[in-house]
Amino acid sequence: MERTILKSWADCAANLVAVAAGRAAADLVIKGGQWVNVHTREVLPDHDIAIADGRIAYVGPDASHCIGTDTTVIEAKGRFMIPGLCDAHMHIESGMLTPAEFARAVIPHGTTTMFTDPHEIANVLGLEGVRMMHDEALMQPINIFTQMPSCAPSAPGLETTGYEITPEDVAEAMQWPGIIGLGEMMNFPGVVNADPKMLAEIAAAQVAGKTVGGHYASPDLGPAFHAYAAGGPADDHEGTCEADAIARVRQGMRSMMRLGSAWYDVETQITAVTEKGLDPRNFILCTDDCHSGTLVNDGHMNRVVRHAIDCGCDPLVALQMATINTATHFGLERELGSITPGRRADVILTSDLKTLPIEHVIARGQTVARDGKCLVDCPHYDWPDTARQTVHMGRDRTADDFIVPAPEGANRVTVNVIGVVENQAPTKALKAELNVKDGRVQMDREADICQIALVERHRALGTTTNAFVSGFGYAGNMAMASTVAHDSHHMIVVGTNREDMALAANRLSAVGGGVTVYKDGKELALVELPIAGLMSDQPATDVAAKAQKMVEAMQACGCTLNNAYMQHSLLALVVIPELRISDLGLVDVTKFEMTDVIQADT
Amino acid sequence: MERTILKSWADCAANLVAVAAGRAAADLVIKGGQWVNVHTREVLPDHDIAIADGRIAYVGPDASHCIGTDTTVIEAKGRFMIPGLCDAHMHIESGMLTPAEFARAVIPHGTTTMFTDPHEIANVLGLEGVRMMHDEALMQPINIFTQMPSCAPSAPGLETTGYEITPEDVAEAMQWPGIIGLGEMMNFPGVVNADPKMLAEIAAAQVAGKTVGGHYASPDLGPAFHAYAAGGPADDHEGTCEADAIARVRQGMRSMMRLGSAWYDVETQITAVTEKGLDPRNFILCTDDCHSGTLVNDGHMNRVVRHAIDCGCDPLVALQMATINTATHFGLERELGSITPGRRADVILTSDLKTLPIEHVIARGQTVARDGKCLVDCPHYDWPDTARQTVHMGRDRTADDFIVPAPEGANRVTVNVIGVVENQAPTKALKAELNVKDGRVQMDREADICQIALVERHRALGTTTNAFVSGFGYAGNMAMASTVAHDSHHMIVVGTNREDMALAANRLSAVGGGVTVYKDGKELALVELPIAGLMSDQPATDVAAKAQKMVEAMQACGCTLNNAYMQHSLLALVVIPELRISDLGLVDVTKFEMTDVIQADT
Repeated sequence: MERTILKSWADCAANLVAVAAGRAAADLVIKGGQWVNVHTREVLPDHDIAIADGRIAYVGPDASHCIGTDTTVIEAKGRFMIPGLCDAHMHIESGMLTPAEFARAVIPHGTTTMFTDPHEIANVLGLEGVRMMHDEALMQPINIFTQMPSCAPSAPGLETTGYEITPEDVAEAMQWPGIIGLGEMMNFPGVVNADPKMLAEIAAAQVAGKTVGGHYASPDLGPAFHAYAAGGPADDHEGTCEADAIARVRQGMRSMMRLGSAWYDVETQITAVTEKGLDPRNFILCTDDCHSGTLVNDGHMNRVVRHAIDCGCDPLVALQMATINTATHFGLERELGSITPGRRADVILTSDLKTLPIEHVIARGQTVARDGKCLVDCPHYDWPDTARQTVHMGRDRTADDFIVPAPEGANRVTVNVIGVVENQAPTKALKAELNVKDGRVQMDREADICQIALVERHRALGTTTNAFVSGFGYAGNMAMASTVAHDSHHMIVVGTNREDMALAANRLSAVGGGVTVYKDGKELALVELPIAGLMSDQPATDVAAKAQKMVEAMQACGCTLNNAYMQHSLLALVVIPELRISDLGLVDVTKFEMTDVIQADT
Repeated sequence: MERTILKSWADCAANLVAVAAGRAAADLVIKGGQWVNVHTREVLPDHDIAIADGRIAYVGPDASHCIGTDTTVIEAKGRFMIPGLCDAHMHIESGMLTPAEFARAVIPHGTTTMFTDPHEIANVLGLEGVRMMHDEALMQPINIFTQMPSCAPSAPGLETTGYEITPEDVAEAMQWPGIIGLGEMMNFPGVVNADPKMLAEIAAAQVAGKTVGGHYASPDLGPAFHAYAAGGPADDHEGTCEADAIARVRQGMRSMMRLGSAWYDVETQITAVTEKGLDPRNFILCTDDCHSGTLVNDGHMNRVVRHAIDCGCDPLVALQMATINTATHFGLERELGSITPGRRADVILTSDLKTLPIEHVIARGQTVARDGKCLVDCPHYDWPDTARQTVHMGRDRTADDFIVPAPEGANRVTVNVIGVVENQAPTKALKAELNVKDGRVQMDREADICQIALVERHRALGTTTNAFVSGFGYAGNMAMASTVAHDSHHMIVVGTNREDMALAANRLSAVGGGVTVYKDGKELALVELPIAGLMSDQPATDVAAKAQKMVEAMQACGCTLNNAYMQHSLLALVVIPELRISDLGLVDVTKFEMTDVIQADT
């Protein structure tokens, strides 16, 4: 399965020993660099690295004895030799890219290891979809480990996913070669309440000796938090302030601090180390979610490490947080995360430890990028039709599908409105008075209240749930639809006009998923995401360009929100307060229960 | 098998969560202590700990909600609550005690976890003996993990052990419940030369996901050292100076610094942390070898931690080196090594972090010691006759068995003499001129040259190898014999007089092994070690008292050396330079080859 064949340490130990002893020649030697040692936290000038079978054979003051006639020699010329960077928790789907294209995008940024939780595709295609992601991951020239998604649905009873993940699925996946642990345990109320299904999934991972990912998305650090820690999750990336980070580490969890495209949780938490002086070993950096535009324009883990340094973190400590700390967390410290014998030869050459220019990237002993260019093939999995045709609407929608009927005889109604808040994941539960005309509740453009619909697309049921949303600032006749609709990934349609809403929904059905923006009956932008309705198998630059056009189209419709696409795609995320929409209706996420669109007393 | 039944975290997670959330009552609550947090490296006053099912359920500011009518409450009264101490590498046999009695001796010292390598018994009884140690270990109320011995014989071709350990044995043992890894890979020349058998043993441990123990007993930090690191050992406890410790950690191994009864390698290496400021996470404390007297009079891991603090190490860093660093190294950081949810409830109460009085010891949630008294049963394995009758000399020895014949016609010969050096493991290769009488080479009491013999005791071959030794200072007629005879554990007899040598050897045959001292035909002291000729199943206090009598008997025979018993028992250790004796003859350990007792040209 692994394209870049990598022998285990055990399988090449005899050769590594022979190279280190000078009895055999290395495949590659890097001469004269500054060895960044993440075990001792030192920089050691004038060191050489010898590599054989894709692994480190020797690191020392002089590798001359490892050089043979066929050995490639790279002159480091005094540059720093740092371990390849590790992203400790992330969702490939967030880049709208397949694992191969995601890898191609991040390799020039020095990312050589990713711990990925394909929980988006798990909602659409179940265990089979996870396996496809896992298989494409193993084909790449860098290390992509898969965390088995734990929570599909993330909020049982409040939504219907395409597939459900069961404890049996988890137990099965633990046997796959690329599975490193359980993906983020988002159902934290389930853990706190000792839900047998959630505990069974955690147990399956623990019994397999693997790492249980956490996700405790609550500011409550009282008994509920303690109960969650007692349930077994080994890390958490949902902390947003210093107290969150400290509390997690004190309880024996690792604090994953994220800088994603829209997450800014490093600066607020890293003070636990930089100011409070806590032992840094249990703090880890990750991205969680990166859009393709971020990957193309800003970077990946190099961006996170740089940011941590900019926040006052010692560069060597920041590098530990993106290398050995991560490796240790996942039980891989003898496999990767440092430049020491036996480990995968994942090495970056950089001339500055603070600005971290990624000048030369070696993964598994192979030069994979230089000066921002990916120099290696990232093979594509042969995605089957079942993965490419996942938009099952049952029937095309018409404008009538988006009608919100009023109670009989009502002229005006009070409705619950999902209030989008700029730059925040939580929404506000708003209320509004809306007019009724011909028995239908009317939108209110003056008050920026338009409609939102959740179009069922997994079982071809032909159903649509409707509600109201405020905050995008849309004007005129428009609609925007997306099959990226966290976490169950039906289709979210937001519009000021029911005809455009129907056009947008039907368009995504026709192209097999993606994102589209309609204005006055015409499509302004389209990002095709044919794989599971979530990902493109085109390069990141192409996807980023289309996504940029999409943002411009939203703006052309009057949208003024920052990150409006992300807000759009999260409107069905029924685990984050306060109001969301699902295929079952409007959800009050402060109470974890369904609620009415139209208030009963109106 | 485990007497103190301990559920896995997975099996009791529901209860732990319920206790933490306040829905169920804890078994035990410790109130009002100072929580020593080894994850953050902090002391947090006014904390409570709740324990259920032998594991930590809650640690926080107030465990009142975890207390029910049946909950035992311990008032910490402001004392420090530290994790139970871990000994990262040690040989139980060195205490001349069985695992049960060793546990009983160290529990009052706060040791709650030991990583034990039963390589002494492996030499005598092979895999079966290892299994017996492993099984008794699992019966104890504290955590005793077994490292599968890797090197029996430790120097193939230079000695004959009772049994040999094969890669197949290692692979089989990796499936046992209490095996944590491979024991110290002492055959470092084998690793450096890529000996397939040694690499196969390492591979078996790596494939099983377990930790490979190292033992690189050479000051050479050049290519041979690098080759050893490339072979796979994950730690090393043979470093003796700061440069050794630093070199190991830089190469991605953990430096285990030992303070045993006769090893003093902490003070010389801990400066890597205290003065050079290296990241301390990869430095670990251990004892390697402790005599029963040390356990009775001085302590165990508490002695090592105190010593590290006395050497200038921050107490919290020193505690990390004996708790979480060790747990992480063996992949057990979510099982023990810190006081955090889910972990085994191994907790010590102490009123001072610097002098570390061990006032109250809790293991797996049970009070096991208080104020120096062990309060728990340490059950004995039912050792079979095969383990209790292991001295197979074939026939009793007579004085004639200890004759060293001279070359025909010689009146005086030059002999190679093993020179014992006080307080050092290496011996000196000395030479001496000795008289010949009746065709027999004579000892020279004036020059402190007496005889040493290796009496074969594994296969009843009836053979004896003879040589000369100097340095003990014995006077008059005496002999000392021991079936503790590292590493092959035949019988070492040292004497000034062949009649006493025969008496001593035959006495150990009669009692099934141990140590005896004879003077003028009478026994002055005897330590019976019936189990494998290595261990007593009597309490440490009794064994220590007998060992003390043995030391006094040696002194009565004129011995002035410090630690003379240890010197005696190491004289067959054919992996430490310069001269040793084995069942095959005299061994030149500088060249790893056999040599003659009498120089050929004499």
